[in-house]
Amino acid sequence: MSKFWNKKTQEITPYVAGEQPKNMNRLIKLNTNENPYGPSPKAAKVLKDFNPDDLRLYPDTNSTLVREAVASIYKDFGITAENVFVGNGSDEVLAICWQTFFERESICNKKVLSPNISYSFYPVYSEMYEVGLEAIPLNEDFMINIEDYIGKDSCGIAIANPNAPTSISMTSLENIERILKANSDKVVIIDEAYIAFTKNPLTAVELVKKYKNLVVVQTMSKAYGLAGARVGYAVADEELIEGMRRIRDSFNSYPVDRIAEKMASEALLDQEYYNQTRNAIINTRERFVSEISEIGFKVLPSSANFIFAKPDFMDAGSLYQKLREKGIIVRYFNKKIIGDYLRITIGTDADMDECIEAMKEIKDGQNSIN
Amino acid sequence: MSKFWNKKTQEITPYVAGEQPKNMNRLIKLNTNENPYGPSPKAAKVLKDFNPDDLRLYPDTNSTLVREAVASIYKDFGITAENVFVGNGSDEVLAICWQTFFERESICNKKVLSPNISYSFYPVYSEMYEVGLEAIPLNEDFMINIEDYIGKDSCGIAIANPNAPTSISMTSLENIERILKANSDKVVIIDEAYIAFTKNPLTAVELVKKYKNLVVVQTMSKAYGLAGARVGYAVADEELIEGMRRIRDSFNSYPVDRIAEKMASEALLDQEYYNQTRNAIINTRERFVSEISEIGFKVLPSSANFIFAKPDFMDAGSLYQKLREKGIIVRYFNKKIIGDYLRITIGTDADMDECIEAMKEIKDGQNSIN
Repeated sequence: MSKFWNKKTQEITPYVAGEQPKNMNRLIKLNTNENPYGPSPKAAKVLKDFNPDDLRLYPDTNSTLVREAVASIYKDFGITAENVFVGNGSDEVLAICWQTFFERESICNKKVLSPNISYSFYPVYSEMYEVGLEAIPLNEDFMINIEDYIGKDSCGIAIANPNAPTSISMTSLENIERILKANSDKVVIIDEAYIAFTKNPLTAVELVKKYKNLVVVQTMSKAYGLAGARVGYAVADEELIEGMRRIRDSFNSYPVDRIAEKMASEALLDQEYYNQTRNAIINTRERFVSEISEIGFKVLPSSANFIFAKPDFMDAGSLYQKLREKGIIVRYFNKKIIGDYLRITIGTDADMDECIEAMKEIKDGQNSIN
Repeated sequence: MSKFWNKKTQEITPYVAGEQPKNMNRLIKLNTNENPYGPSPKAAKVLKDFNPDDLRLYPDTNSTLVREAVASIYKDFGITAENVFVGNGSDEVLAICWQTFFERESICNKKVLSPNISYSFYPVYSEMYEVGLEAIPLNEDFMINIEDYIGKDSCGIAIANPNAPTSISMTSLENIERILKANSDKVVIIDEAYIAFTKNPLTAVELVKKYKNLVVVQTMSKAYGLAGARVGYAVADEELIEGMRRIRDSFNSYPVDRIAEKMASEALLDQEYYNQTRNAIINTRERFVSEISEIGFKVLPSSANFIFAKPDFMDAGSLYQKLREKGIIVRYFNKKIIGDYLRITIGTDADMDECIEAMKEIKDGQNSIN
């Protein structure tokens, strides 16, 4: 605490990101939902071909190459570059959404609705920008109950689909449409960071041209293997995109650098590699889930590149520690309701085999002590 | 305007960055104070050697390589990596300073003091974060009067040194020390984006260990030729840096990407190249100033990589247009007091020769019409 910090800085509880260990030797990192395969070779080629002297110039403030690539992917849904906003990772894009669309509670006397178990940055943004947040409980199976978002007074809605850290996705776009229709006077954010890992991706981008209150947020950090390049984007009605630009230009005009812009656009255009790697991750996930279920885990039905699992042979916090000692880092949230679970990122088959081996050893070691 | 925008988004006047033309063919770009020489060859080598697969992982949230490089440059002043905060360009770093240290006017009933002519992003940050801003007039020669910042009630101070768009720097660190001493209960930001282009750089970083209320902000976008990579930093007391981290982690945990971090650190460590290019720019500036003074410009004494000049043969707005028609882009601010001036970035000698030639032609063309 410092007397030089303002009130907000003194009071806020910042987001805590997953550990990024300096030395990756002998570590298997399954804690921040990164992609084990890295970016498309076409993105890699951008690096090789990039002329470093071009870095003397500022980047394109609107990252046009990325916007055009996103538009080309979603052209069947009528999306154009004017429907796309690009930022420094989807975290920045989400923060800008909060600042653009959600009203401070002291002004509107209403709250944003969001599931009580969801991305833990949402409460931080809400505190940061003084937006009220009403945490709507998930049901017993960690599912979102659509009815909870219908006919309720609010100043907006934010839902991650698939949800994190539960890994569960909504079953159909109709459910999202029901929420959009019932809340046509306020903005609904659908955060699709993990949409690529649903078996049949049903992105809400399909609904953007139909609902002027919808913002779909996606990221290059997961399925595209570019977490280290910092690119995320939102797809929405032109008017909403214009608002986001206004807020960005009141804060930092050039959040995406020149190399990241080019790499991200090439990665987006290489849908073959994208499908190949996301399918590989889905296959590894299915195998991993089946194997750890046999060891003794309750695993929630995952549509993400991670699973959320409750061990039956040990408490989750102890298992997290013991895996850490064996060089395997997973994510543990020491919180109510989800404190019985571990969130485990899906890596390569070899990574997951080592993880399974370690779990077996820990379970057996425990049995021999008992 | 959209009914989905919140009050702030509807009301704010965003910053307007200098034009970034798509097609640079036959254009000489002297409008956004970029470096004509590009980054150090050592930074360029980072690109060649970078393993694209490393981009699958998130970057180091604290950009340790950059912090250590900054610390090594300023080790004689006692600076360590703990005194350094790194962000996505100095614009983001400044925005975070505003959010960390300056109190909302409705809470503190005080304002931040800053010169009436200065970086035009300061009033935007102030509107964005609802910080009061008291614009203190420069004197007739566009100089800062130190007395104006002594004994005045405020919630902080922000000064660009050298100032922009005037290009003028304060004459000694003693002046800054007087301001720091007289305002020891609040934060003083010294924005040194252009400090490298003063003939004998007198950075206020020298004062960081002595004054716990000082934040010095610098950038990789100007003297280091890395505008396209998006890296800026602040040097300050550990406690102030910790506050800035709290605000960053409540907004976007990883603003600097993996490639930018490595390139920036190598560029910082190559002080030989830095000195060579900044001296080349200073030499070009001196020659350019002397030549355009002969054509008919009043040029303010520049300590930056740009000059601020008032033509005596034509109004500044018309000259801006005519230069644009000849493929030379400079910056014109259509505002009170500074509307008589053009801000012209210093490029290569060849760039400036073309600029001089164009100015002569425009002046002669005008004479032949008269």
